[in-house]
Amino acid sequence: MTARRMHLVAYLKTGPTANHPGAWRHPAAALDDIFDPGRYEHIARVLEAARFDGCFYADTFGLQDIHGGNFDATLRHGGQISYLDPMMVLPLMARATRHLGLGATLSTSFAHPYALARSLASLDHLSGGRAAWNVVTSATDLEARNFGMDGIPAKGERYDRADEALEACCALWDGWEEGALVKDRAAGVFVDPSRVHYTNYEGRFVRTRGPLSIPRSPQGRPVLMQAGSSERGREFAARWAEIIFVTPHQREDAVAFRQDMHARLVAAGRRPEDCKILPSFALVLAETDSIAREKHDHLQSLITPDAQMMLNSALVGVDLTRHQTAREVAQAQGNQGIAGSTDRVLAQARAEGLGFAEAAAKPRGLLVGSAATVADMLEEWFSTEACDGFIFWPTVFPSMFEDVARLLVPELQRRGLFRRDYAGATLRQNLASP
Amino acid sequence: MTARRMHLVAYLKTGPTANHPGAWRHPAAALDDIFDPGRYEHIARVLEAARFDGCFYADTFGLQDIHGGNFDATLRHGGQISYLDPMMVLPLMARATRHLGLGATLSTSFAHPYALARSLASLDHLSGGRAAWNVVTSATDLEARNFGMDGIPAKGERYDRADEALEACCALWDGWEEGALVKDRAAGVFVDPSRVHYTNYEGRFVRTRGPLSIPRSPQGRPVLMQAGSSERGREFAARWAEIIFVTPHQREDAVAFRQDMHARLVAAGRRPEDCKILPSFALVLAETDSIAREKHDHLQSLITPDAQMMLNSALVGVDLTRHQTAREVAQAQGNQGIAGSTDRVLAQARAEGLGFAEAAAKPRGLLVGSAATVADMLEEWFSTEACDGFIFWPTVFPSMFEDVARLLVPELQRRGLFRRDYAGATLRQNLASP
Repeated sequence: MTARRMHLVAYLKTGPTANHPGAWRHPAAALDDIFDPGRYEHIARVLEAARFDGCFYADTFGLQDIHGGNFDATLRHGGQISYLDPMMVLPLMARATRHLGLGATLSTSFAHPYALARSLASLDHLSGGRAAWNVVTSATDLEARNFGMDGIPAKGERYDRADEALEACCALWDGWEEGALVKDRAAGVFVDPSRVHYTNYEGRFVRTRGPLSIPRSPQGRPVLMQAGSSERGREFAARWAEIIFVTPHQREDAVAFRQDMHARLVAAGRRPEDCKILPSFALVLAETDSIAREKHDHLQSLITPDAQMMLNSALVGVDLTRHQTAREVAQAQGNQGIAGSTDRVLAQARAEGLGFAEAAAKPRGLLVGSAATVADMLEEWFSTEACDGFIFWPTVFPSMFEDVARLLVPELQRRGLFRRDYAGATLRQNLASP
Repeated sequence: MTARRMHLVAYLKTGPTANHPGAWRHPAAALDDIFDPGRYEHIARVLEAARFDGCFYADTFGLQDIHGGNFDATLRHGGQISYLDPMMVLPLMARATRHLGLGATLSTSFAHPYALARSLASLDHLSGGRAAWNVVTSATDLEARNFGMDGIPAKGERYDRADEALEACCALWDGWEEGALVKDRAAGVFVDPSRVHYTNYEGRFVRTRGPLSIPRSPQGRPVLMQAGSSERGREFAARWAEIIFVTPHQREDAVAFRQDMHARLVAAGRRPEDCKILPSFALVLAETDSIAREKHDHLQSLITPDAQMMLNSALVGVDLTRHQTAREVAQAQGNQGIAGSTDRVLAQARAEGLGFAEAAAKPRGLLVGSAATVADMLEEWFSTEACDGFIFWPTVFPSMFEDVARLLVPELQRRGLFRRDYAGATLRQNLASP
């Protein structure tokens, strides 16, 4: 039996900062190339040289203004937003690489599945089979209002629509059989019409007639990612997800989550190995534990309580300057807020005996140490079946990923925990290979 | 006073063929790289070396199935459709060039303006100010049904929505002032929130709250292109268009159209020079007129009557195998069909004493000859104020554009009719420079 090996995915944003609301202030943070294609090509090459399975862009379809009731804190503290549409950046990264998986976060609540299917199939073609879709239903009224809605629908309805959106997209993607492109000049037959089929999807929320004008892509459909940790989110993930992205828990919680998801996968007629469960961490790596700790302390000193709380207001969907206890937060959420993020803050509040808003003002924990120390921590999670690998989100961009590539990945490879070369031609094949 | 000079724009499709439904069968037509980024980078470099103002992708948001009531003819004859989403290809072309304008066709009838504004602003950033938007309202039920609608709305309503979509997009693009990105690490201020503003657009069809998460792009807004030749289309173009794309008329008709548009531009408070009017032609160029004529005859022999009629069924919005006279076509159009294309077939039918469907089965005329001969024809149109330059659509791809670059452009440059180098930093600046 081949040794089980980790899968690694990078969490990216088209902006100066992602999840760490102080790192853009670090002297090494790249701030001047946010609109420059080279920024995105560089990170793609770094991640591919490190043999990451892939990367994906987190995304919000608006400018967060929950915290304090306006967008001032969001903008001042660097955004946590998309300064460019990630779908316009991913083709550049596809061109700069040959193996790296390339994911976008696209919401089933705003765009029509026909448009989603069309652009994702195109990315899969242009990348030779490396597209991924982080499926979200969106959780803020501010995004819904950008798209002409009064507010975001309730979670149940959002997921019902997402199920239909995926059914419709899969039907569109399956509308072209392989080999439909005949390209017979003499006979004057470019495509064999008998190998293309109407979609005729009729759901409660989604209708599309099809077919796409886009032939079957190398992967057939993009790799589907999902991050829902609510009951309804888990049900959705069990049906669709090939990568599940979970926010840090205690290791024991992660083991329980993975066991629960495995049972749900089997109940849905899938195999546990069809879905990789990846908790997300940010790292501070250095030559020694002592240097890493000093780097960590400096980095965390760049986060102000307001900046951290702003980020958590956005994730929890509640203005934490106004609603400060867990009970108030739960009452104020309405249809907004991400269950996984709410649980994470709640767990931190309980563990440290803090109020909800107090905990939300404290920086999230990072994994800190030399490559050997951090590899020990990751190996413990991995070997105790808490996960199938990890999603790394950046502190200082791009240097944190450069550190992972130069320091951590070689250590993981030495331990036989991570691939030395890509085994597959597509992202899905790499996820299936140890 | 500086001499007036032509503006040249290339009409492209992400497929084997565009408007010429036989050219993909030509032995030199590139068929094997349709999903390859290199195809698109190559054409971008060819056009930039030839000093074209820009290029744009025509697009249909579906698979044409009007002709014969199914998509068989469309697929067999090479498609006339988008085999890739052009918005996924344009970033690659931006990266491969420094001056070439880069346009996408996006419909205001299907996507929400927030999404349109976001992706177009991103393209403008990534290209350093070279994005263009060919604004269409779409004219087929088949596209509407892909997006869950029962059919395409009436033209008046489509244009009313398009006006609102553009108002909303412009409000979104204007929501970020220049200089909003402060990037002050020490003070912890990445963006100055006082320079970012809510959109709060409330129309009859379109609502969006904003702001975008994307800072002001180099051009502020993409260059707007439009092709409507109906009364309502001209009114819309007078308000918004910076490039008007017209299908070939007699030169006298083009002079009259341009005079009409100039009057409308002035009535709308704009200057005639704010909008370039570009008729579209395809060319057959060769060393001599005689060789060009032979090449033309071979090329046109690759078009079957069914292939040409299929293309015109799609443009006119009527199944021309069933509705054959001008009167029947007019009755059958309903909300479908493009006025300019209908007029073009009608003019050809009248000129040649043919029925509507008969005319629609005959290949469109091409400009044929040596560089000097073709330059003479173009110069006549240009010098008699029939236009401000030309849109060239491809016959054989990419060799027709390579011929334009190698044979025709140097001839136009020798005559002082076309730039030898780019004058501006953005597409809009190049359009404003002679």
